[in-house]
Amino acid sequence: MPLPFKHLVSTRQLTRKDTDLIMSVSADMEQVLKKGGSDLLKGKILASLFYEPSTRTRLSFETAMLRLGGTKVTADGLQFSSLYKGESVEDTMVVASQYADIICMRHPEQGSAERAAKVSSVPFINAGDGPGQHPTQALLDLYTIQKERKKVDGLRIAMVGDLKFGRTVHSLSYLLGLYKDIHCTLVSPKELTMPEKVTSYYKEKGISFTETDDLEDALKADVLYVTRVQKERFDDPKEYERLKLKYIVRKEFAEKTKATIMHPLPRVGEITNDVDVLPNAAYFRQAGNGIAVRMALVAMLLGKA
Amino acid sequence: MPLPFKHLVSTRQLTRKDTDLIMSVSADMEQVLKKGGSDLLKGKILASLFYEPSTRTRLSFETAMLRLGGTKVTADGLQFSSLYKGESVEDTMVVASQYADIICMRHPEQGSAERAAKVSSVPFINAGDGPGQHPTQALLDLYTIQKERKKVDGLRIAMVGDLKFGRTVHSLSYLLGLYKDIHCTLVSPKELTMPEKVTSYYKEKGISFTETDDLEDALKADVLYVTRVQKERFDDPKEYERLKLKYIVRKEFAEKTKATIMHPLPRVGEITNDVDVLPNAAYFRQAGNGIAVRMALVAMLLGKA
Amino acid sequence: MPLPFKHLVSTRQLTRKDTDLIMSVSADMEQVLKKGGSDLLKGKILASLFYEPSTRTRLSFETAMLRLGGTKVTADGLQFSSLYKGESVEDTMVVASQYADIICMRHPEQGSAERAAKVSSVPFINAGDGPGQHPTQALLDLYTIQKERKKVDGLRIAMVGDLKFGRTVHSLSYLLGLYKDIHCTLVSPKELTMPEKVTSYYKEKGISFTETDDLEDALKADVLYVTRVQKERFDDPKEYERLKLKYIVRKEFAEKTKATIMHPLPRVGEITNDVDVLPNAAYFRQAGNGIAVRMALVAMLLGKA
Repeated sequence: MPLPFKHLVSTRQLTRKDTDLIMSVSADMEQVLKKGGSDLLKGKILASLFYEPSTRTRLSFETAMLRLGGTKVTADGLQFSSLYKGESVEDTMVVASQYADIICMRHPEQGSAERAAKVSSVPFINAGDGPGQHPTQALLDLYTIQKERKKVDGLRIAMVGDLKFGRTVHSLSYLLGLYKDIHCTLVSPKELTMPEKVTSYYKEKGISFTETDDLEDALKADVLYVTRVQKERFDDPKEYERLKLKYIVRKEFAEKTKATIMHPLPRVGEITNDVDVLPNAAYFRQAGNGIAVRMALVAMLLGKA
Repeated sequence: MPLPFKHLVSTRQLTRKDTDLIMSVSADMEQVLKKGGSDLLKGKILASLFYEPSTRTRLSFETAMLRLGGTKVTADGLQFSSLYKGESVEDTMVVASQYADIICMRHPEQGSAERAAKVSSVPFINAGDGPGQHPTQALLDLYTIQKERKKVDGLRIAMVGDLKFGRTVHSLSYLLGLYKDIHCTLVSPKELTMPEKVTSYYKEKGISFTETDDLEDALKADVLYVTRVQKERFDDPKEYERLKLKYIVRKEFAEKTKATIMHPLPRVGEITNDVDVLPNAAYFRQAGNGIAVRMALVAMLLGKA
Repeated sequence: MPLPFKHLVSTRQLTRKDTDLIMSVSADMEQVLKKGGSDLLKGKILASLFYEPSTRTRLSFETAMLRLGGTKVTADGLQFSSLYKGESVEDTMVVASQYADIICMRHPEQGSAERAAKVSSVPFINAGDGPGQHPTQALLDLYTIQKERKKVDGLRIAMVGDLKFGRTVHSLSYLLGLYKDIHCTLVSPKELTMPEKVTSYYKEKGISFTETDDLEDALKADVLYVTRVQKERFDDPKEYERLKLKYIVRKEFAEKTKATIMHPLPRVGEITNDVDVLPNAAYFRQAGNGIAVRMALVAMLLGKA
């Protein structure tokens, strides 16, 4: 069944029907993966264009394409020379969409994904546009929640860390608005609380939420979504060091909760390594789920699933 | 039908018979593309070696290889570590030609392509050697001219911008010498006129030409080939700013001419965006033609077309 | 026949039975190459992860994978962004081994390969870990020796150049310990002699050896393994210039010996170009052998050969 759009730019463009469909095809793709892949996209080319490097996301897209029998061409980070010569994103896309059958792009500038999609003659997927959106991350997060908890409706989701600048928690929040009876526990230092645009979206969609700076308040959640607190967000390095420690998920803490523990990765200390062995530590499974979800998206946008 | 050479280093090595053959096979390859590609080069590997980055050219070569069912290995720009360790181009090529079935290389140094071809045990294609040659660009330019104007003989070609350092207009000029009754209108600031080695080639081949610094003189041409005037060519930045403005192709200008408007891309303002919608704006189609032409070249040099 | 291990981290983990098997399958792979490759690894993905660039090694691994019908995803050098964000090698590997079917990794830090292998859920191959090991280079060296000399047992191997820091001569030495009646002639400046850990391994394994600073002492060897003397190893640049000249293999020298001349490449003057045409100049054949040996290793670790 095809998706009712050609390009995936933002989670805000999705309906519940869309996410249900994507979750369902992603589950099918997990079965394809178990059989070692397929030839569904034989002859199709993905252009994987990363104006800023993001190895994990790029390899995940490319692996998804290869697992379905497709191929890919890559431009990554510093090699992305046309950019340096001052070419517009639009010109690059007009050309790239004559080369490839589908494009995924990461770009440091908010709004670049929408500009790119507007001129692309082939399906386009936003792989992160600066502080803007990262819809495939949000969809794999959603898929992980559904797979780990068997449902999304009615869940209590705690989000922890930098909620102000964290692109992933924003993109995910806009997906949660499609589900019923969601409660969000927003755990962050005062300096990094969830922006008003997201909390007013919660209100509009009937998502109840509580804001706190105490990690203990997240213990009763069904899902604990941990994000990184970045040093560069703070004027005072000492303040950063003090706050960072308050939001570290340690084994003693993780054992006290039944919450599914998630993290978009890379982690740099927010969750200690001894948590990894716990059954509710889902962050590595979450990363793995990215393959199936991106297989589903690429195949659906190409009209093949 | 095979080409009478193993390596493509320069447009100067080509005869009219060669270009006729390449144009004809490129047209066949367009049909292959319409059918979604082929398996003609299954099992063949392209080594795509870019000592300096050129994303558009690299992706075009790699896409061409993939569309014919082949695969590729890539080394690009800063990653190209052997160079840093001081290895000669020759040593790199002797090794690479034991890995791959065909090699394309971009290198900043003039003459490097010829040195590489000399030692390569597999077909080698020059993808640009500094201020030297860029033969596949010239061939896709020629293919675009022929496709847009239904012929090349007898055409009036205007070249605009930096004719002194512009590698593409030089490589193209050497191809035009294979055709009859060509007239070139050379539009450039006095500082950036066509070098004597090219104009004496025009004389030798019976190409008539006029030199001018007035863009209006190009209005009657059949083809308007626009290139970039680079800031770094001028001692005085103000002089650059003044001259740049004189050679910008704007919509009012483009509507006054029936010329096919071409540009090797990237453009950075030489042609305004509102020109893009005009039917004679051919530069994006030109970039797209690169796939078919490079498919033709790779297949022919591998003895498969 | 499968190898008795899942990961290849160091030549020290190998038995004579292992190297015999690898040599034998490598010879089979040369036949596969002559037929233009195979589909043995169709559907399998290699993750080629180079935290520091090494174009030759990377392209060799990737070509090996493609020649067997597999595919690859690549992360190279500066693009390898997760590293910059401070992620541990272990976390990267846990994720990458959910994407790919087999991983090869180069990393600047000694011991990183062992740490990576410990957490990888798929076969892992060390492609060089800083001053540590580079087992696939040593195996292709061994394969070259056996192919050029028809045996390894009983050979006199001269190693020349920087024996102190040269990773390749160390890795190779640990393989030679599996063979009988080996004599090593160690030719180096006093500043760069073979470390005690290697010479004591020689003693343990019954490898006889002589140490010298005179290249002439290598004339009677069966194999002359030349390595680079790096400028950065010397406090005094003049001392470097003086010593470098002492260990250059020139044509007059190479014609005086029947030794198979090898070099891990890149060379930067240690062997003059006029040596290349001599029948005993084996270094380019050696580089070419890397494809067959890596095909063998990848296929065996995937249980397909």
